[in-house]
Amino acid sequence: MAGNSFGNIFRITSFGESHGPAIGVIIDGCPAGIKIEKEYIQQQLDRRKPGQSDMVTQRAEEDEVHIFSGIFDGQTTGTPIGMVIYNKDMRSGDYDNLKDLFRPGHADYTYYKKYGIRDHRGSGRSSARETAARVAGGAVAMKLLENFNISITGYICSIGKIKIKAKDLSEITKNKIFCPDTNTAIEIEKYLLSLKEKGDSTGGIVECIVNGVPAGLGEPVFDKLSADLAKAMLSINASRGFEIGDGFACSELTGSENNDPMISGCKFESNHAGGILGGISNGNEIIFRVAFKPTSSIKLSQKTIDIHDNPIEFSITGRHDPCVAIRAVPVVEAMTAITLADHLLRDRNSRLEF
Amino acid sequence: MAGNSFGNIFRITSFGESHGPAIGVIIDGCPAGIKIEKEYIQQQLDRRKPGQSDMVTQRAEEDEVHIFSGIFDGQTTGTPIGMVIYNKDMRSGDYDNLKDLFRPGHADYTYYKKYGIRDHRGSGRSSARETAARVAGGAVAMKLLENFNISITGYICSIGKIKIKAKDLSEITKNKIFCPDTNTAIEIEKYLLSLKEKGDSTGGIVECIVNGVPAGLGEPVFDKLSADLAKAMLSINASRGFEIGDGFACSELTGSENNDPMISGCKFESNHAGGILGGISNGNEIIFRVAFKPTSSIKLSQKTIDIHDNPIEFSITGRHDPCVAIRAVPVVEAMTAITLADHLLRDRNSRLEF
Amino acid sequence: MAGNSFGNIFRITSFGESHGPAIGVIIDGCPAGIKIEKEYIQQQLDRRKPGQSDMVTQRAEEDEVHIFSGIFDGQTTGTPIGMVIYNKDMRSGDYDNLKDLFRPGHADYTYYKKYGIRDHRGSGRSSARETAARVAGGAVAMKLLENFNISITGYICSIGKIKIKAKDLSEITKNKIFCPDTNTAIEIEKYLLSLKEKGDSTGGIVECIVNGVPAGLGEPVFDKLSADLAKAMLSINASRGFEIGDGFACSELTGSENNDPMISGCKFESNHAGGILGGISNGNEIIFRVAFKPTSSIKLSQKTIDIHDNPIEFSITGRHDPCVAIRAVPVVEAMTAITLADHLLRDRNSRLEF
Amino acid sequence: MAGNSFGNIFRITSFGESHGPAIGVIIDGCPAGIKIEKEYIQQQLDRRKPGQSDMVTQRAEEDEVHIFSGIFDGQTTGTPIGMVIYNKDMRSGDYDNLKDLFRPGHADYTYYKKYGIRDHRGSGRSSARETAARVAGGAVAMKLLENFNISITGYICSIGKIKIKAKDLSEITKNKIFCPDTNTAIEIEKYLLSLKEKGDSTGGIVECIVNGVPAGLGEPVFDKLSADLAKAMLSINASRGFEIGDGFACSELTGSENNDPMISGCKFESNHAGGILGGISNGNEIIFRVAFKPTSSIKLSQKTIDIHDNPIEFSITGRHDPCVAIRAVPVVEAMTAITLADHLLRDRNSRLEF
Repeated sequence: MAGNSFGNIFRITSFGESHGPAIGVIIDGCPAGIKIEKEYIQQQLDRRKPGQSDMVTQRAEEDEVHIFSGIFDGQTTGTPIGMVIYNKDMRSGDYDNLKDLFRPGHADYTYYKKYGIRDHRGSGRSSARETAARVAGGAVAMKLLENFNISITGYICSIGKIKIKAKDLSEITKNKIFCPDTNTAIEIEKYLLSLKEKGDSTGGIVECIVNGVPAGLGEPVFDKLSADLAKAMLSINASRGFEIGDGFACSELTGSENNDPMISGCKFESNHAGGILGGISNGNEIIFRVAFKPTSSIKLSQKTIDIHDNPIEFSITGRHDPCVAIRAVPVVEAMTAITLADHLLRDRNSRLEF
Repeated sequence: MAGNSFGNIFRITSFGESHGPAIGVIIDGCPAGIKIEKEYIQQQLDRRKPGQSDMVTQRAEEDEVHIFSGIFDGQTTGTPIGMVIYNKDMRSGDYDNLKDLFRPGHADYTYYKKYGIRDHRGSGRSSARETAARVAGGAVAMKLLENFNISITGYICSIGKIKIKAKDLSEITKNKIFCPDTNTAIEIEKYLLSLKEKGDSTGGIVECIVNGVPAGLGEPVFDKLSADLAKAMLSINASRGFEIGDGFACSELTGSENNDPMISGCKFESNHAGGILGGISNGNEIIFRVAFKPTSSIKLSQKTIDIHDNPIEFSITGRHDPCVAIRAVPVVEAMTAITLADHLLRDRNSRLEF
Repeated sequence: MAGNSFGNIFRITSFGESHGPAIGVIIDGCPAGIKIEKEYIQQQLDRRKPGQSDMVTQRAEEDEVHIFSGIFDGQTTGTPIGMVIYNKDMRSGDYDNLKDLFRPGHADYTYYKKYGIRDHRGSGRSSARETAARVAGGAVAMKLLENFNISITGYICSIGKIKIKAKDLSEITKNKIFCPDTNTAIEIEKYLLSLKEKGDSTGGIVECIVNGVPAGLGEPVFDKLSADLAKAMLSINASRGFEIGDGFACSELTGSENNDPMISGCKFESNHAGGILGGISNGNEIIFRVAFKPTSSIKLSQKTIDIHDNPIEFSITGRHDPCVAIRAVPVVEAMTAITLADHLLRDRNSRLEF
Repeated sequence: MAGNSFGNIFRITSFGESHGPAIGVIIDGCPAGIKIEKEYIQQQLDRRKPGQSDMVTQRAEEDEVHIFSGIFDGQTTGTPIGMVIYNKDMRSGDYDNLKDLFRPGHADYTYYKKYGIRDHRGSGRSSARETAARVAGGAVAMKLLENFNISITGYICSIGKIKIKAKDLSEITKNKIFCPDTNTAIEIEKYLLSLKEKGDSTGGIVECIVNGVPAGLGEPVFDKLSADLAKAMLSINASRGFEIGDGFACSELTGSENNDPMISGCKFESNHAGGILGGISNGNEIIFRVAFKPTSSIKLSQKTIDIHDNPIEFSITGRHDPCVAIRAVPVVEAMTAITLADHLLRDRNSRLEF
């Protein structure tokens, strides 16, 4: 009810603050018999890990995952999978001067109003650090999906006003910013370094493609696959928008332009729908986009108030990402994996025969 | 688990097919003591009702709500509120020729793959008729919110490529299409009639504003208020995208442009965030947009296949909306009301003291 | 959250008051493809129906079920099954003199304290009439279980101090009180008529046997099959206790007496466990008992207070069961069916391979 | 869905196996502002801890709780409370000879059938060790309840055939077996030591009293307070029965004997109901009993089969409780606390006014 769980059958529960002893995740409802190694989970965490390039925060966390339960002899046992990542490179002192003020763009004010108390160190629970728990959970979901030949690929499709001009998925791993267009990546990296120098930040858009999803996943009314993906994406820190298939652009089309005709072999001639019809996957590639706002933590001077309602001018020191959309890529993939794993299992009960 | 319920504490469960005997909704978790009359619920249903203008489907349903339980002596009793709307003007014959084919843009194929069986008459459960149940449920949520001085206003902000040029909320009720700009409404109406004549359709964007939401609603991690609104909106038939505040546009801004500075009185100098920070309402006006695709049912000839995988060319007769976004306006409001009512009640447990 | 739903995957939501227009049930999560006729559901309802003998209340309800959705062409479609039973033989006048007082043994006082308002006519929502909705829902669950050769049989094993001396399940349908021992049934019936004449009532114990449950149903920690059965049973009006297998009696045994040895063929030499080990079915017959208190509505004069805290002496007129345990038998079966249907579907995700 | 969570608003999720690195619990939905110290949680754990007397297992676990999140500056913050207890005194070797056989009374066979794989060391997830997670979670629930002056007291009321003859709650802490009758405690202890010597075990009954619960807690239909307590109790390892108030005994009473008359001051003259009417607390003392079967692990020789269906004779070495009911006392209290905390918070939404 307090919303730290996601999913129905494949269900993760996340816990932990940025500057507490540890963060972690419990996966409940993962079927028994999935082969998975700690190394695989670690690899996924490493992709999200801070400090990997000058494009992201320099907080130096190893982010080593510890598996406490639910995996035995290299496979899942059907019992809850408990995983913990200890916090190590915390510099809580960086936050001392921020303790009593409400940083613009952050959840400081809203937490204060909601709970009357907050762990101010490193944004506490609303820190992007929480997303490491999601990536660990997502790694298990990905392994589950692998058994059904489903694969997920996220990438940057714009940063600030710079959009990719080409899309070659094999290039995503060849640059530091998950970009499928290396030339544009270079341009973006320059822009980000210039922003970093100024102490400013920017936003970006992440696109995600899912291949191999069979027709039939998603529940037709409230728990449409598209609706649950939307929720999953808007639950990621700093995300501000979601669109599936042609998304907002299809509001400008006519029905005759937008309908995807079916052809023999249960195929579709086009994919304006982004792989989902009536909330249920249609067997086509699923494609969607998520908009991220600029990092709220900037070094430039800002105006705000403190908890006594006094106006104050301040600037944020500490180590921050010039664009959160970059490290959001593995988080988008993880949340997609969890959403799909859940719907894959839910669909097992759509019919009597299975 | 099959996804016909929405909400956690204030929870609606919807049932019913387009051409069955009735559709309906059960509201569980509505607190006792809310004054509500049947007439109020009926008024909300009338706003969504088909057949009201030449801009929408001509199906002539009275949509009279019958209250079966949960309201006694003019107020809610705390027990489940059961409401039923009988289907009357069904012309199931219109669908006989569509029985074995998969209409493009519709859920015919995906239902068939998911369940192996489907009620093909009038799209069955995936008909927009299901949204009447949401509007009835939303009416009760709105009454609950009224007790806390929260008000919700949805309107059209674009149809096809035509965008509103002005925004005067008092004009919304003065035209047939929930448009806050009467001049543009006239232009849009002309466009829709021309589409109707051609047998085509178009999409549109609905914007929604919520006033009076106190700071503190929304759960900070997965059940962010923005995430639950995104899910609510993407659960509406034909919706393809959601954005909160500046949404996709803020991906192009810098942090210094996008952060909303706070000023004395716990106010914000701007509202790029759309009233939600870290997933929790900040006391500002909440504003978001939902993109709707063009109506999939068009009279123009289309290509598809039947259940035996044979290619087929066909055209849809029957009565359809040239743009589903229009009648979606009260549905957007209803789903917003349900989402907020739920979070308002959830928030009662954020603190020990209340 | 307000607790009018039961089950996770196979989930029923009940609504309706005793003297409102109708009661009903929505089943969400029933797989598509289950053959079921309205007549079957009606038969189950008829078993619970009042007015069938002088041993039960004389309220003369037809209890005709109306199916509003989710069943098409004689089978379930995977969409929510909505069923309604109109209230007809209401004599709300019988309750006028009870409006402002708290009947002992009833939920009058507790509803009043909880909600500040209550529909006093015929006990409103806390009337045993609500259990008709459960029986309708249970009928669908039973059909689902039939496909897996699971069968459920409930019966009376004691009424007041009179216990059955023999157990022949074929006799259950041969008397008016679901008793597997016709000789004792005659004795019980005499006792009940004498109580009725005095204006008093008594309690009873219902036993229930489930055959055909495969090993593996039930979740091992909180959602043990035994725990969910316990909840299901204690959720029935007037129930006060639950025990599985040897139940309370096994607290007096030693481990060497109580352990059920396994023998070749994955069989058990005894069944002290009642078919459930570690919360999971072991393939043995499941057997449990439910204790029901005496009907609270008695014609004898009673002392109580009214809503103004004034002491008052009164007696209840109207039509009541001398022992609620009798009509509880089909309700026990229905709730067992729903619990098992839910766990059967849940278990489909215990393993990767299915 | 896999059932490792309990509660709706105040919700615990338990994880961990007996012989894995750690067990733990996440509490989601605990309101902010509850003062709580680690020491208090530790005290509760110490009451359940093994190795404290010769009446219980000699496994020597410190059971030190580590708080990873959700408590800051001595109070709850509203974010999930993560707690971990490392496993230390594991003797996995004790279980090597049991690896491939199904111990009678244990969940070995049922886990194997459910998951196709199991962590056999120390019963894995079905070990009573899991209940330490519940006690940690229950400690936080108790602190919450303390703020509302609600207190919970569990105790032994029978072991094997020996029943207490007196009930003085102040004596519970004066013996090693949570017994409110020290004389009987001495008798019981002798009996247990004699059983231990023989290598046998026995069952017992735990009674629990809750004081200070206001009228109004519990949801009236499926989530009756009595139903949720029944589920909570039957979810505890080795429990086989539950009864509230007079329980099974009231099935023998008449209505005129069993109804509790109300008297001025909203009081009840008797408490056959055990403090719950229509599933809702009535302000009276809540009282219920839980039956526990004998410990399944006995040293006496037993017959069973192995995973290849071969008959086998074996005996269990290792360290076991002669009667699990004793260490179940703090677990009964913990599960009661969690159930009540959840219903206390749920009830905050019963009325509009609060």
